[in-house]
Amino acid sequence: MAMNAPASEHASANRGRQHRVRLPSPYRFHAGGELPEATLAVETWGSLNAARDNAVLLFTGLSASAHAASTAEDPSAGWWEGLIGPGRALDTDRYFIVCANSLGSCFGSSGPGDTDPATGRPYGYAWPELRVEDIARSAQAAVEHFGIDVLYAAIGASLGGMSVLAHAALFPGRARRLASLSGTMTASAFAIATRALQREMVGTALAGGAIDLGLAFRYARKVGMLSYIGAALLENRFAHATGSQAIGASGTRFEVESWLDHQAQKFAARFDPWSFWYVSRAMDLFEFGAFGREPGTGTTHFGLKLEQALVIGVHEDQLFPLGQQAEIAAMLKAEHVPTRYVDLSSPYGHDAFLVEDRMFAPLLAEFLDGPAGQRDKSPF
Amino acid sequence: MAMNAPASEHASANRGRQHRVRLPSPYRFHAGGELPEATLAVETWGSLNAARDNAVLLFTGLSASAHAASTAEDPSAGWWEGLIGPGRALDTDRYFIVCANSLGSCFGSSGPGDTDPATGRPYGYAWPELRVEDIARSAQAAVEHFGIDVLYAAIGASLGGMSVLAHAALFPGRARRLASLSGTMTASAFAIATRALQREMVGTALAGGAIDLGLAFRYARKVGMLSYIGAALLENRFAHATGSQAIGASGTRFEVESWLDHQAQKFAARFDPWSFWYVSRAMDLFEFGAFGREPGTGTTHFGLKLEQALVIGVHEDQLFPLGQQAEIAAMLKAEHVPTRYVDLSSPYGHDAFLVEDRMFAPLLAEFLDGPAGQRDKSPF
Repeated sequence: MAMNAPASEHASANRGRQHRVRLPSPYRFHAGGELPEATLAVETWGSLNAARDNAVLLFTGLSASAHAASTAEDPSAGWWEGLIGPGRALDTDRYFIVCANSLGSCFGSSGPGDTDPATGRPYGYAWPELRVEDIARSAQAAVEHFGIDVLYAAIGASLGGMSVLAHAALFPGRARRLASLSGTMTASAFAIATRALQREMVGTALAGGAIDLGLAFRYARKVGMLSYIGAALLENRFAHATGSQAIGASGTRFEVESWLDHQAQKFAARFDPWSFWYVSRAMDLFEFGAFGREPGTGTTHFGLKLEQALVIGVHEDQLFPLGQQAEIAAMLKAEHVPTRYVDLSSPYGHDAFLVEDRMFAPLLAEFLDGPAGQRDKSPF
Repeated sequence: MAMNAPASEHASANRGRQHRVRLPSPYRFHAGGELPEATLAVETWGSLNAARDNAVLLFTGLSASAHAASTAEDPSAGWWEGLIGPGRALDTDRYFIVCANSLGSCFGSSGPGDTDPATGRPYGYAWPELRVEDIARSAQAAVEHFGIDVLYAAIGASLGGMSVLAHAALFPGRARRLASLSGTMTASAFAIATRALQREMVGTALAGGAIDLGLAFRYARKVGMLSYIGAALLENRFAHATGSQAIGASGTRFEVESWLDHQAQKFAARFDPWSFWYVSRAMDLFEFGAFGREPGTGTTHFGLKLEQALVIGVHEDQLFPLGQQAEIAAMLKAEHVPTRYVDLSSPYGHDAFLVEDRMFAPLLAEFLDGPAGQRDKSPF
């Protein structure tokens, strides 16, 4: 596969590449339904070694693309630019990093916003019901596409934290290590209430109800922002300050309103409402417990085959609260997986993993490489 | 004033009554504008004593009526039914309790949803800009209507906590004691962001924008509920449970969705969207600091004349966080007001004052009567 696009300095240094992986056809979904032709947008950084045992799979949050770091084709910074690269926590001199845009999303992977050839319009509700299991299975298909038999590690944050657990249960032994950052085994009632309200707004508009789609999507994003971000951060940044913008429908012009408006506009411009609705629903429907087997012993067993695990939670996270992180760690330990559990404090709340590189980098480096000082001794 | 309606047992025991108080005409608003005829819906319980020194004024939250307890005319339970009555924390055998429906609200007080005689339609944006100061001033007018020179105490929760501070600053010496429950001197950026989003939804619909008014009002209530209630409470009550209702625009049917739907329907059926928009804006625009005088000394002084104060906050309150309660207490102490500050823990979060009678009752009883055991020695 030749690099046709001009490479930036970053992208050539980390040897980032874009791929489009064809999924097995027809592609069958976990809850029923299938697609004749489905593809997954994937980006990779670094090189697969000869033993093919240095691959690290990344699962993303709800609205992220596969662009976790710059590539030859797209030199713009990715959502984990600070963590992926030569000498960085996810060291592209050592690891072959694979990040898949979730199935159902809208950044090159097949999704419900795609044009249905039968109608010439978006599939919409005609697309199969998406589950987290489909996100995990399709990413595993991409892994196999690269000829990787066993992953060195799989890492996921937020929705990715659900996907990485699903992957471990569906494909025991296909990843040696697992890292879950601000993830969960099952959404909390508060998270469900928040996301169901967002989907109600967007879904009402998509169904032709009494709200404009653009308006609904922006409202939904604002509801989301209020649940992602820590109140202390908003207070430090905006307090009671007013801006110079025109007074709109709220009757006020606080700076925090401008900021929310900007976030909502940006999101609505880049994300597809059908993808949002589908992936959000998948998050709420996910139940890791369904993978459990209880052979009359009264205990739940998931049959995970992992050599090591890292679980990170953030105290200020309202959406994936700390208690859920402790539950993941306890489950892993009950599966006899040596597990490190770390609780961080960050005003960024649920978004901390996207912002707090300094907190996450050493934890992820140690998770992959072993304790500091071991870094130069390659595990390969 | 004769009792014409049949009195319930409760109402006759606490001698509850409804009143409609005419405000001075024209009624001038803090930020400009006036109304030719304005009225305030007021309810009272107990009797004013001969010295007229046993009156307690209650300020309400955003959406409450003056019906804090049952009355002769309305024997239904009020929003503080468990706290108001003979022998209760707000003892109607000892105190004359006065509760005003906020100016701008829709339960008998003049508000922007009233019909404008000039147009035959609701005033809407033609109504004067409402401020918390107007809520405090109009309630004081009601107090004077009853011939009360000095209140024994003024109590307010939530918006009422802002109103009671405004009252203390606007009318120093007209209330001897002050209790602020889950109030604030200024809204937090998170609270502003939440309420501004609610007003954007409702305001867009009221201005004829691209969303149905009923839909906007229900969405706004859901956004509010998610900020009022503690996540732990939702988790304990609903977790991941699904109900039997039809799947709607959200694509799911979790029980927490049904509950939110029910809350939103109930709210939209009883509250006026214009009142919601006006009173919500007043909350965001409130700045207690504006009452401060700094005569070159570098210190802020509010000139409060209070004999005693009680400040209560709730640890789980996201909307009026504990730090704001501590700030109120610190401000009162700086004003040389003997102040008791209590922080409670309740899964009901901001709504705790409406639910946790057992926590609030002893604190309010002691605030009014002095330490337990003193209760039988009347302060009058």
